[in-house]
Amino acid sequence: MALQALVLYDFTAEPGNNELSVRAGDTVAVIDQSVGGGWIEAQNSSGHTGLVPEGYLQIGNAGGGGGGDSWSGGGAYVSNTEGWDSRGHQHNQQATPPGEDNDGEWDDDWDDQSLGGYYGNEQAEGEGGVSGRSAHGPSVKISLNKFPFSKGPSPEVFLLAKPPANSSRLPIYTGEVGPVWLYPTSPLDCVIADPKKESKLYGLKSFIEYQVTPSTTNRPVNHRYKHFDWLYERLLEKFGSLLPIPSLPDKQVTGRFEEDFIRMRMERLQAWMTRMCRHPVVSQSDVFQLFLTYKDEKEWKSGKRKTEKDETVGPMMFSLVEPEAAELDAAQVEQRCEQYSRFTKSMDDGVRELLNVGHTHWKRCTGPLPKEYERIGRAFRNLSTVFSSSKYPGEETLTDALTAAGKTYEEIALIVAQQPQKDLYFLLETNSEYKGLLGCFPEIIAVHKAAVEKVKEADRLVSAGKISSSDKRSMNQRSSCMSYSLQAEMNHFHSNRIYDYNRVMQLYLEQQVTFYQQIADKLRGALSQFTTL
Amino acid sequence: MALQALVLYDFTAEPGNNELSVRAGDTVAVIDQSVGGGWIEAQNSSGHTGLVPEGYLQIGNAGGGGGGDSWSGGGAYVSNTEGWDSRGHQHNQQATPPGEDNDGEWDDDWDDQSLGGYYGNEQAEGEGGVSGRSAHGPSVKISLNKFPFSKGPSPEVFLLAKPPANSSRLPIYTGEVGPVWLYPTSPLDCVIADPKKESKLYGLKSFIEYQVTPSTTNRPVNHRYKHFDWLYERLLEKFGSLLPIPSLPDKQVTGRFEEDFIRMRMERLQAWMTRMCRHPVVSQSDVFQLFLTYKDEKEWKSGKRKTEKDETVGPMMFSLVEPEAAELDAAQVEQRCEQYSRFTKSMDDGVRELLNVGHTHWKRCTGPLPKEYERIGRAFRNLSTVFSSSKYPGEETLTDALTAAGKTYEEIALIVAQQPQKDLYFLLETNSEYKGLLGCFPEIIAVHKAAVEKVKEADRLVSAGKISSSDKRSMNQRSSCMSYSLQAEMNHFHSNRIYDYNRVMQLYLEQQVTFYQQIADKLRGALSQFTTL
Repeated sequence: MALQALVLYDFTAEPGNNELSVRAGDTVAVIDQSVGGGWIEAQNSSGHTGLVPEGYLQIGNAGGGGGGDSWSGGGAYVSNTEGWDSRGHQHNQQATPPGEDNDGEWDDDWDDQSLGGYYGNEQAEGEGGVSGRSAHGPSVKISLNKFPFSKGPSPEVFLLAKPPANSSRLPIYTGEVGPVWLYPTSPLDCVIADPKKESKLYGLKSFIEYQVTPSTTNRPVNHRYKHFDWLYERLLEKFGSLLPIPSLPDKQVTGRFEEDFIRMRMERLQAWMTRMCRHPVVSQSDVFQLFLTYKDEKEWKSGKRKTEKDETVGPMMFSLVEPEAAELDAAQVEQRCEQYSRFTKSMDDGVRELLNVGHTHWKRCTGPLPKEYERIGRAFRNLSTVFSSSKYPGEETLTDALTAAGKTYEEIALIVAQQPQKDLYFLLETNSEYKGLLGCFPEIIAVHKAAVEKVKEADRLVSAGKISSSDKRSMNQRSSCMSYSLQAEMNHFHSNRIYDYNRVMQLYLEQQVTFYQQIADKLRGALSQFTTL
Repeated sequence: MALQALVLYDFTAEPGNNELSVRAGDTVAVIDQSVGGGWIEAQNSSGHTGLVPEGYLQIGNAGGGGGGDSWSGGGAYVSNTEGWDSRGHQHNQQATPPGEDNDGEWDDDWDDQSLGGYYGNEQAEGEGGVSGRSAHGPSVKISLNKFPFSKGPSPEVFLLAKPPANSSRLPIYTGEVGPVWLYPTSPLDCVIADPKKESKLYGLKSFIEYQVTPSTTNRPVNHRYKHFDWLYERLLEKFGSLLPIPSLPDKQVTGRFEEDFIRMRMERLQAWMTRMCRHPVVSQSDVFQLFLTYKDEKEWKSGKRKTEKDETVGPMMFSLVEPEAAELDAAQVEQRCEQYSRFTKSMDDGVRELLNVGHTHWKRCTGPLPKEYERIGRAFRNLSTVFSSSKYPGEETLTDALTAAGKTYEEIALIVAQQPQKDLYFLLETNSEYKGLLGCFPEIIAVHKAAVEKVKEADRLVSAGKISSSDKRSMNQRSSCMSYSLQAEMNHFHSNRIYDYNRVMQLYLEQQVTFYQQIADKLRGALSQFTTL
C-alpha cells in the first residue's frame, strides 16, 4: 500500500530516538513523509518502523522534496551544509572531459539548470547530510576512483622522472616551524562580487556571471560557475598529489529563493578562492594566474588550451620539489607520513563530530525550541487576556506586565530561531571547508605510502637488475623531497588551521555572548514591569 | 506479535511531531517502549504508528514503568506535576469513610505504602500528565460523582433552611472591590517542618510525622499525611459549596529518593496549608483551628468526633451568610454566576495551556538540550585534543582556549539541566495549585445555578401551593446571599491571584535573567581566551 523508497546510504539509528537503521540498497515502505525536520517515517522489510533522514532515501521516482518546517528560517543553509564535499569529485563523471570544450562554446549549462530541475532531489539529499551521519563511505569511494595515482604513473615512474626543463621549481625552505613553501612577499587575495544573470541563445539559456577582482591587478574578470569548475579540475589534476584541493561548493546548492541560492554560492566560491589564494604553490601557478588576470577572451582561450595540455601533473610534480634541508632516509619519510595520516584522520573525525552536533543543534534552535518560546509567550499573553476580563479593580498592572512578558518570550522565539544563522552558520561553514580539505589527505598520503613501499624494495629491484644503484639513490632522494613537500604542506595547513579556528571560535563566542546577553536584558525589562503588592 | 496497551485518555497528536492520536478505551500495539522521554511508539488498529505519552497507556498488566531519562535531574518533579489535582477527589472512593476511624487507631497506612508499591504505576501516570494534554475528562467526572450537591439537599431545602442556632455567621461586607469576607485582623500562617520517620507495631509500619506550627500560638502540633487528608475531607464537606477547597498534593507523589519524596510532599502540604490559612472563612473555622491548635491527643480525638457530626455542611452553609448590601434580584444573581463561570473556565484553559507548554519545555531543558550542549562542549574539547597532537609550534594558545570553550559548554549543559528546578518549577507549582482551585469552581457554580433555576420557578411553585409567598421571599433572599458569597469568594480569589501571579512571574523572570546572564558571562570568559593572530 505504501510508497516505496530506495535507501541510498547506510544509516545507523541512534538508540531511543525512534530511528530506523537501514542499509544502502534496501527498499523500505514510506509511512509518513510529513514528519518534518528532514525525517521520514519508514518501515523495513522486517516490519520495523522508525525515522530515516530524508536525504538517505530516494522515494519512488518523484525524488522526495523537503518537508517544510515553518520555523527553519535558516533552511537554505541547513539543506546545503554538506554541499562542500559530500559529493566529492562525483561530478567529474558527468562533466565534459577537458579537451571537448576546445571550441570555446559554453553549451553545457548544468550548473545553471540546477537552479530549477535539481531542486527536489537536492533538497532531500542535502538534508540527509544535515543529519550529520553522512558516512565516510560514498564520498571517499568516489574520490578514490578518481584518485590521480590510480590512473597516474606507477611509483617507479614518478620516483625516477626527470624534472621538466621549462617548469619552475617548488623550493622548500626551513623555517621556524620546519619545512615551509616559498611564500610570496605580498599575499594574493581576490573579491568575488556583483553576480549578474546573463543569457544566451536569445534568452533560452541563462547563467550567473561573477566579477572576480584579484588584489594584484585590481582589474575585474568575469567568470561563470563552470569556469571555476574548470579551474578546480586543473588544480586537482596538477596539485592533487601534493596538497589538498577541496571541492568547489556544490553545484546544486539550493535555496528557498533564487537570490539566496546565488548569494550562498557566491559566498562559498569566495571562501574557496580565498583558500586557494592563500596557498603559495597554487596562487603562484600559471593556471591560477590565468584565471585571475586574463586580459581578453583570446588570452583566456589560448591559456586554457595550453593548460589542458600540461603534462607535469599529479605525482610528477614531486620532481619539481627542491628542499634546502638534508635528505631524509626511508624510515624518517615513513614516520612523517604515518604521523600526518593519524593527525588528519583524527581531525576529520573531530570535525565530523562537531558538524553532526552542530546540525542537530541547528535543527533544534530553528525548530522546536523557538516554537516552545512562542508557546510560552502566547500562554502568558492569553492568561493576561483572561485576567483583564476579571473586572477586578487594579488588575492592569499585572495584565500589562504579563502581556509584556508574553511579548518578550515571543521576541525571544524569533531571536532563538535567527541565531544559528548568526553564529552556528560560520562554525559549520568553516568546519565543512575543513572536512573538504581533510577529505583530500587520504589521496595525498596514499601517493606517499606508495613511494615509501617502492623505496623499501629498491634493494631487491637492484639485485634483480630492474633498476640501477643510481636509480635507487634517485628514488631515495625523490621520496625525501616528497616528505619535505608533505611537511611543508602540513605546516601550511596547521598555520591556516590555527588562524581559521581562532577566528571562527571568536566569531561564534562573540555572537553567543550577544545572544544570551540580549535575552537577559530583554527579560530584565519584562521583570521590571511586575510589582510586589 | 506486539504487546497490547489500553489507552487511558484521549490524546490528540500534534501535527509533524510523529505522534499518534488515540481515544480512551482503544487498544493499541506497543511497538517501541525504549523511545525515551516519556513516549511510547504505538500502532493503532488502522495500522498507523506514532508516539503516545507513556502515561496515556496501560501496558499489559505490568503498568508501564517510566523510560529513564538520564538527564532528568528534575525528574521527580516532572513525574508529579499534575499530582495536585489530576486524580481529583478520586481517593475518596478508597479512603476510609469518616466515622469508621473513631476508634482513634491509625491502621490505614496507604499514605506511607505509596512510597514503594505505587512507584512504577505512578511514574508512568505522572508522565502522562506532564505531556500536558491530560484531559479535563477524568478529573472532572470523578469530581462530579462526589459533588456535594448531588447527594446533598435539593435546592428547596437549602434555600429555605433556617440558620442553625449555635453556628457563627459568615458576614459579608462591602469593600472597595465589592463584597468581601470578614478578614481577621492578623492573618494566620503556619510552618510545616521537621518531617520525622516514625513507626508503630514494633517497626512493622512506618510513617512520616510533620511538625505544624501556627503563627497564632507558635506551639507545634504533629500531623501525619492522613491527618491532613482528614482535614481536607472535613473542609471539602463543609465549605465545598461556598469556596474552592483544592485537593491535597497527591498521596502517591514519587521521588527518585525517599528524601525527595518527603521534601516535595512537605513543600506541597505547606503550600496547601498556606492557602487555607489565607482564607478568612476556612482559617477561622473550628475544624481548622482544632487541627492547628489542639492541646493533647484527647482534645484532638474529641474535636474530631464532634467535627464529624457537624451537620451544617455543603449548601446548608449559605444559611449562615449575612451580607450587609442590598438584596439582589434573580437576574442579577444569574448574571454574576455566568460571569464567574466564564472567567474560571477561561482561566482554567489558560492555566492548562501554560502547564502544557511548561511541561514540554521542562522536558526539553532537562533532556535533549543539555545533552546537545554537552556534545558541543565535548566536540570542542576533542578538537582541542586532536590539535594538541599536531606538534606544531605555538599550538597551545588555541588548544587551551578550545578546551576552555569545551568545558564552558559542558558547564552550560549542567546549568541548563538544573535551571527548570530553579524557575519553571515554581511557575508550574503555582499554576498547578490554581488548576486545582479552578477545578473546584464548576461544583460551586452548579450549586448557584441550581438555586437560580429553583428561584425562577418560585412563582409556579407558589401557584401550585408547594411553597408559600413568604417561602418565595426567603428563597430570593437566600439566593441573593449566595451571590454575595460567590462575589466575596471571587474577590478573595482575584486578590490572591494577583498577588500570586505577580510573585511567581517575578521569581521566574529573576531566575531566567540570572540564567541567561550567567551563560553570557561564562561565554565571555571563554571568548577572552582566543586571540587573533
